[in-house]
Amino acid sequence: MDIYAKLKELNITLPEAPPKGGVYLPAKEFGSGLVYISGCGPNSGTGNPAAGKLGQEYTTEEGYVLARSCMINVLAVLHAYVGDLNRVKQPVKVLTMVACTNDFYEQPAVANGGTGLLVDLWGKQLGAPSRSAIGVNVLPGNIPVETEALFELTL
Amino acid sequence: MDIYAKLKELNITLPEAPPKGGVYLPAKEFGSGLVYISGCGPNSGTGNPAAGKLGQEYTTEEGYVLARSCMINVLAVLHAYVGDLNRVKQPVKVLTMVACTNDFYEQPAVANGGTGLLVDLWGKQLGAPSRSAIGVNVLPGNIPVETEALFELTL
Amino acid sequence: MDIYAKLKELNITLPEAPPKGGVYLPAKEFGSGLVYISGCGPNSGTGNPAAGKLGQEYTTEEGYVLARSCMINVLAVLHAYVGDLNRVKQPVKVLTMVACTNDFYEQPAVANGGTGLLVDLWGKQLGAPSRSAIGVNVLPGNIPVETEALFELTL
Repeated sequence: MDIYAKLKELNITLPEAPPKGGVYLPAKEFGSGLVYISGCGPNSGTGNPAAGKLGQEYTTEEGYVLARSCMINVLAVLHAYVGDLNRVKQPVKVLTMVACTNDFYEQPAVANGGTGLLVDLWGKQLGAPSRSAIGVNVLPGNIPVETEALFELTL
Repeated sequence: MDIYAKLKELNITLPEAPPKGGVYLPAKEFGSGLVYISGCGPNSGTGNPAAGKLGQEYTTEEGYVLARSCMINVLAVLHAYVGDLNRVKQPVKVLTMVACTNDFYEQPAVANGGTGLLVDLWGKQLGAPSRSAIGVNVLPGNIPVETEALFELTL
Repeated sequence: MDIYAKLKELNITLPEAPPKGGVYLPAKEFGSGLVYISGCGPNSGTGNPAAGKLGQEYTTEEGYVLARSCMINVLAVLHAYVGDLNRVKQPVKVLTMVACTNDFYEQPAVANGGTGLLVDLWGKQLGAPSRSAIGVNVLPGNIPVETEALFELTL
C-alpha cells in the first residue's frame, strides 16, 4: 500500500520540513541508499514550539504524542529529501532522546510514539527499527524530545 | 578460534536475549551485512534488574561489571539474530551511556567493561570498536548503563 | 582545493591525534569506505584539558570554540588513520554532546563550531553532515563537549 495513503488513513498531513537549526543538512545520503535524518524536535500543536521536560512539564502520555510529532517531522524531512516515501526500503535505526527529570524512567514508552508510527507505515517487521531511548538533562531550545533516524532506500 | 569456545574460556554463558522494552527490533540488518543492536541494559546478577546511577548507587568498578553485562546482552541479541557469532566480521561502533551524578567523570572506565569483552573475543585490533562513552542523567527503568552497538557480518 | 591548503588558510595546524581514553579504536573502517571516529574532546588551548560545563564554566561563544577544537581532534584522528584527508568523500553524520546545566538551551550554537569547520573544508553542501546536538549532564573527565563523527571515503 502507498505510504501517502497510509498517512491519510492515519489522519497525518506531513508538515513542511522543519527549518534547520544550525550548520548541518536535515538529510544526508551515503553508502548505497542510506540516509541519516538529523535530530528533529516536536511541534507543540499550538503553533509554538514544545518546551519543557518529561516528569515536569509533560507526562509520559504527552511524551508519546511528542515523540510521534518528532517522527512526523523526521518523515517530512525524508519526504523533502527523497521526493517519494515509497522509495524507503526500511527504517534502520532510531535514537530517541528524552529531556527529563533525574527520576523519570519511562523513556521507552515515550519513544514508542515515534517508532510506533514507523510500524504503522511500513509494517511490524520491516517498519520496526533498531532503537535506543535515553534520558538527557536538556535538549536544544528546551524541546522535550529529539529524534534522529537512519533509513535505507530501495536502489 | 571459535567464539563460543572463547566465551566458555571466559566463563560466560550467553543468556536468553533480553525481552524487548518497546516498539523496535532488538537487531536490524541493513546495507551489506551491517547489524544494529538496540540499546541493552545490564543484568544485576540477582535476578532483579540493576537500578541506580554511577556516583550514587554504583562505583566505577561496579559500573565496569555492569557495562560488561550490557555487552553480554548485546551478544545474546546478536546470537539470537544471526545464529552463529562466528559470522561476525567485526564490531564497528559502540555507544555506552552511563546514568550518573553530575560530577561522575569515569564513563570511559565503565565503558571498558563492555568493549574489553569484544577485544577478548575478536582480538585487540579487529575486536576494538569505535566508541563514545557519555554520561546522562537517567536511563530507562533506572538502569545504570545502556549499550548499543553496530556489527559487521561476513557475507 | 587541497584540504591541507585549506587548513593552512584557516590557520589550523592539525595536532597529534589525541591519545585513546580506553579500550576502543580512535577510527574504525567498515562497509565500503565508511569510517567512524570515536568521541573526541576539545583542547583547552592552555595545554591542560578543558573541563567544566556550558551554562556554568563556559559561555555559548566559548562552547563554539570548544566544539571546533573537538572537530580538529576528530580530523587529526581521521588524518592519522587515512593518511590523506583528500581521500574524504564527505562527512556523513556528527553527534555533538554538550555537558551543560539543566537550563542551557544553545547546544546547536555550540555544535556549529564543529560542523562549521567541516563546511569550511569540504563546502556548503558536501561538507555539511547530518547532525544531532544534545545536552548531557556530564562527560568523561569533565570535558565540556564531545564529538563523534562518521565519514565516507572515496574508494
